[in-house]
Amino acid sequence: MSAVTYELIKTCKQTGARLGRVHTPHGTFETPVFMPVGTLATVKTMSPEELKELGAGIILSNTYHLWLRPGEDIVREAGGLHKFMNWDGSILTDSGGFQVFSLSDLREIEEQGVHFRNHISGEKLFLSPEKAMQIQNALGSDIMMAFDECPPYPAEYKYMKDSVERTSRWAERCLTAHERPDDQGLFGIVQGGEYEDLRKQSARDLTALDFPGYAIGGLSVGEPKDVMNRVLEFTTPYLPTEKPRYLMGVGSPDSLIDGAIRGIDMFDCVLPTRIARNGTCMTSNGRLVVRNAKFARDFSPLDPNCDCHTCRNYSRAYIRHLIKADETFGLRLTTYHNLYFLVKLMEQVREAIRADRLGDFRDQFFEQYGFNKPNAKNF
Amino acid sequence: MSAVTYELIKTCKQTGARLGRVHTPHGTFETPVFMPVGTLATVKTMSPEELKELGAGIILSNTYHLWLRPGEDIVREAGGLHKFMNWDGSILTDSGGFQVFSLSDLREIEEQGVHFRNHISGEKLFLSPEKAMQIQNALGSDIMMAFDECPPYPAEYKYMKDSVERTSRWAERCLTAHERPDDQGLFGIVQGGEYEDLRKQSARDLTALDFPGYAIGGLSVGEPKDVMNRVLEFTTPYLPTEKPRYLMGVGSPDSLIDGAIRGIDMFDCVLPTRIARNGTCMTSNGRLVVRNAKFARDFSPLDPNCDCHTCRNYSRAYIRHLIKADETFGLRLTTYHNLYFLVKLMEQVREAIRADRLGDFRDQFFEQYGFNKPNAKNF
Repeated sequence: MSAVTYELIKTCKQTGARLGRVHTPHGTFETPVFMPVGTLATVKTMSPEELKELGAGIILSNTYHLWLRPGEDIVREAGGLHKFMNWDGSILTDSGGFQVFSLSDLREIEEQGVHFRNHISGEKLFLSPEKAMQIQNALGSDIMMAFDECPPYPAEYKYMKDSVERTSRWAERCLTAHERPDDQGLFGIVQGGEYEDLRKQSARDLTALDFPGYAIGGLSVGEPKDVMNRVLEFTTPYLPTEKPRYLMGVGSPDSLIDGAIRGIDMFDCVLPTRIARNGTCMTSNGRLVVRNAKFARDFSPLDPNCDCHTCRNYSRAYIRHLIKADETFGLRLTTYHNLYFLVKLMEQVREAIRADRLGDFRDQFFEQYGFNKPNAKNF
Repeated sequence: MSAVTYELIKTCKQTGARLGRVHTPHGTFETPVFMPVGTLATVKTMSPEELKELGAGIILSNTYHLWLRPGEDIVREAGGLHKFMNWDGSILTDSGGFQVFSLSDLREIEEQGVHFRNHISGEKLFLSPEKAMQIQNALGSDIMMAFDECPPYPAEYKYMKDSVERTSRWAERCLTAHERPDDQGLFGIVQGGEYEDLRKQSARDLTALDFPGYAIGGLSVGEPKDVMNRVLEFTTPYLPTEKPRYLMGVGSPDSLIDGAIRGIDMFDCVLPTRIARNGTCMTSNGRLVVRNAKFARDFSPLDPNCDCHTCRNYSRAYIRHLIKADETFGLRLTTYHNLYFLVKLMEQVREAIRADRLGDFRDQFFEQYGFNKPNAKNF
């Protein structure tokens, strides 16, 4: 049996969204789920205890960053990533592919892998399917990701077709190189951009390899929202219902709901933590930029409808003061709140699926959050 | 009865150190005590819950900084500093005097007060005994400090004598201006540099005004350690035994013990939190610079003899990784540890006073920490 398994509990009659459970060597979490991002073996500003308290069951960490700092050897010697960072819940690691394509210069793609430069030191590096597996095996994450090519958006059809085919060949090499299939589940990544036939081809290639889960990659890279939704709609029918589906890089409340409606089970994004560190909060009434001067004497909580630790104990005025004064405790408070907000949102989504009313929930949520307003911001 | 009272429990037969209790409107703490510094209504990187968990009973906050940001009006409107920052323990606020003299340019001292420039905006400001009281009354701290002049070290005798006399006149004006004596205790500050007769004069002037507590100011400003000890020895005899004595700006383990031996009850310093943010830790075996390369693969705790949350759960290698990668969680872990270390040290000091063996404790501690080595660093 695979290290990672999926259990479909029910499908929403109103939308087709899936309520399920994913079992990993470090526990079980319900889906649809949002995974906070802990790039360098820490979710920025948070402690593992706080992540547990706010309800996170799985977090994501970045293979590329941990490879460079502190190096996967040190993490392995520490007893793996869970022990190194004191997190006993599930961990998903990406493959490094996205960072190679988004952060590095001078990359050269060849059949064997990708040559590029370290974004910190400028040193020349090489990442391949085999290397990505070796690093992730050393990290010991519960869910590993296959090493894929992340093409730019938009990309020409010919480029995308070549890329999809290479990603399929790389996926097969990943499966062969993966040394700990009993401890770690390896997910394949469906690519193909906005081309329906290429998504279909990619999904068929990968499902033939029988991964325990599948990601949909190459979205949330600048394409319009309706393009993302359309791609999800024509891709998921080619994915097996008994395996989890992971939409990479998505974390705005609207896209989480719209992704769930299209059959997605797992999501990750730096959005909630990144905007938190800039003083922007997600609330039941929409975005709130707590840095703004109008909150200087506002002693109400970030979100009057929220019962998180931040909202129960701290005011907008205090948090604004801290952030204006560059005090990191302010960033802890906003980060905690934003992560709690998304964890609770996903709980509500699961509850709505259970009650066959996710479509109604979407309408109400979009109205209250302000997504229906003209020129509404995307988070 | 004063808002703040002191209860002498016993005096160490071996050293003369005092074991006591200070009662404030927000509770009681045992002395000798170390007070963590929360300059801008936050002890940098820490939550109030963490401060409570590690055993802090009283923290210090800075009047000058809160006056500039967010402004004392906002703190008063929030219901006072305790409510603003969600800290229900005791708070001591300084008078702003030290910051005016250490941070600002172009200061001009006159009988009425001090003209100077805001260290952030450059704006011209004026601080006086009356203004310092008005701000601290708005903040609502349990212990307020009189507005004093902090002369440079070293200072000529004539300058120091004039300064001491002005500080005494200012102290009287502070008492008159203090509007909430039932809620907040106001401490006087004894000045006089290294001049015994001036320390005596200052102590006599101030004790005649019957403050509920007395600070010894103008030390830990660059003078040799034996000068500090000598000043304490010839000053404390002029202070009443039934009032608490606070040595301002002291936080290195050796000086805390040596201060306690000389009859000091309260201490504060940014040292433990500031060096923590630079990756330097206080341990039972001396200073440990966890940033150093030699700890990259050291999976032991910061201090093998420490049972704090950091040491129970995180390794030197992980903390080094976080600090090297500029991850604030690393600073949380070192800050927590250093504060816990000093809180525990003061518990040990109190235990040693109770057992009439603080002199023996000093010898053992200095040996183990390395203070007896030639060229030992001061913390």
